[in-house]
Amino acid sequence: MEKSSIRRAIVLLSGGLDSATVLACAIREGFECRTLAFRYGQRHTVELEAASHLSKELGAVEHRVMDIDLSALGGSSLTGQGEVPKGRSETEIGGGIPSTYVPARNTVFLALGLAWAEVVEATHLYIGVNAVDYSGYPDCRPEFIQAFERMANFATKMGTEGPGVHVVAPLQKLSKSEIIRLGMSMGVDYSLTRSCYDPDPRGAPCLGCDSCQLRLAGFHEAGHEDPLLPLFGLTTP
Amino acid sequence: MEKSSIRRAIVLLSGGLDSATVLACAIREGFECRTLAFRYGQRHTVELEAASHLSKELGAVEHRVMDIDLSALGGSSLTGQGEVPKGRSETEIGGGIPSTYVPARNTVFLALGLAWAEVVEATHLYIGVNAVDYSGYPDCRPEFIQAFERMANFATKMGTEGPGVHVVAPLQKLSKSEIIRLGMSMGVDYSLTRSCYDPDPRGAPCLGCDSCQLRLAGFHEAGHEDPLLPLFGLTTP
Repeated sequence: MEKSSIRRAIVLLSGGLDSATVLACAIREGFECRTLAFRYGQRHTVELEAASHLSKELGAVEHRVMDIDLSALGGSSLTGQGEVPKGRSETEIGGGIPSTYVPARNTVFLALGLAWAEVVEATHLYIGVNAVDYSGYPDCRPEFIQAFERMANFATKMGTEGPGVHVVAPLQKLSKSEIIRLGMSMGVDYSLTRSCYDPDPRGAPCLGCDSCQLRLAGFHEAGHEDPLLPLFGLTTP
Repeated sequence: MEKSSIRRAIVLLSGGLDSATVLACAIREGFECRTLAFRYGQRHTVELEAASHLSKELGAVEHRVMDIDLSALGGSSLTGQGEVPKGRSETEIGGGIPSTYVPARNTVFLALGLAWAEVVEATHLYIGVNAVDYSGYPDCRPEFIQAFERMANFATKMGTEGPGVHVVAPLQKLSKSEIIRLGMSMGVDYSLTRSCYDPDPRGAPCLGCDSCQLRLAGFHEAGHEDPLLPLFGLTTP
């Protein structure tokens, strides 16, 4: 196959359930995929190890981890000293911007993905934002993704002189259970994914934080057991 | 003065002539300024030392340097192994995207500036792009700045629930000589700024790279001697 006929994509891969599903979508679309994860001052790196395994397992050609010290800027319980909220109801999770919000995170991650895309001539940039994640995060909304894509086409050689840049968010309108069904239909092994904001030292999920709760509810609604739980001797609460 | 009446700005400060002038503009507008520089795999750090001095000298309240490993993504002679082009004519400098282009650089820098802006509740984000810098860099054009501002308002709490985000590029339509005259009228000491892509070990400018040539031509046209030259025993070639 000639170089020019290869369609390349950069996939932002956190190691969570959503971005693993997104990588499977991009692979299914026929893209040669490169995956990008970020070490940005998280309190744990379980997710990063998961991202590296998932990238290989799902068939990406390259995985990179970039360091960015977002914690130097402060402002979030995910990277700072605050407590991760636990045991909140779905209404609470869905209402307002939570304290785990990392300022401008998706803007920063997409910007770095865009830089790599330009270097390897990838025309597509995949990100796993979705309707549930919206839950108060402004940078998970469709309007944000559209505005980023528009900006990216002004920002780059690809946009101004080349084939253009596409920001793809295939989960945007899916609920967590729909995402899980979609991933399972593509054979994604969700036992390789990690979602918890506050895992124990073994990497076991806390089952209490917002992210664990959304994941539990998603598997429940999809009619599946989360394959991650038996790995740690856990069952659905 | 009450907290709410303080107007805050983040100023991207490279240590070069343009961003020093921008900081002086933001200070003159009455903003409480925080300056942000990046260690992104440049081959030299003369600029970074200059940024730190300039921040204090011009009256910013805080200066931070963020590490981002853009060189891990490759793709530019500023951060990679290629040669910095020397002795190019103004037509060559103005035509096409030069090899010193760092992919999506201003997008990445503005995104990180936006993150800090959100943390400290700064409504204004200053950047020193200008008409001359355009010279083939897509992310120095007014259309890019406007598209970034629009995106930033979708991306953040400030944009969606707060006072909005403004991306200010006060040099956008000025030539290098106009920038120099503006800065001198505000008392900017340009001997503290560094512009060279390829300084010698003492930090002296090479006078041959695109950036040195634009600076030399700018001072010439403004009718001033570059105050940096005597510091290194140099004179205008």
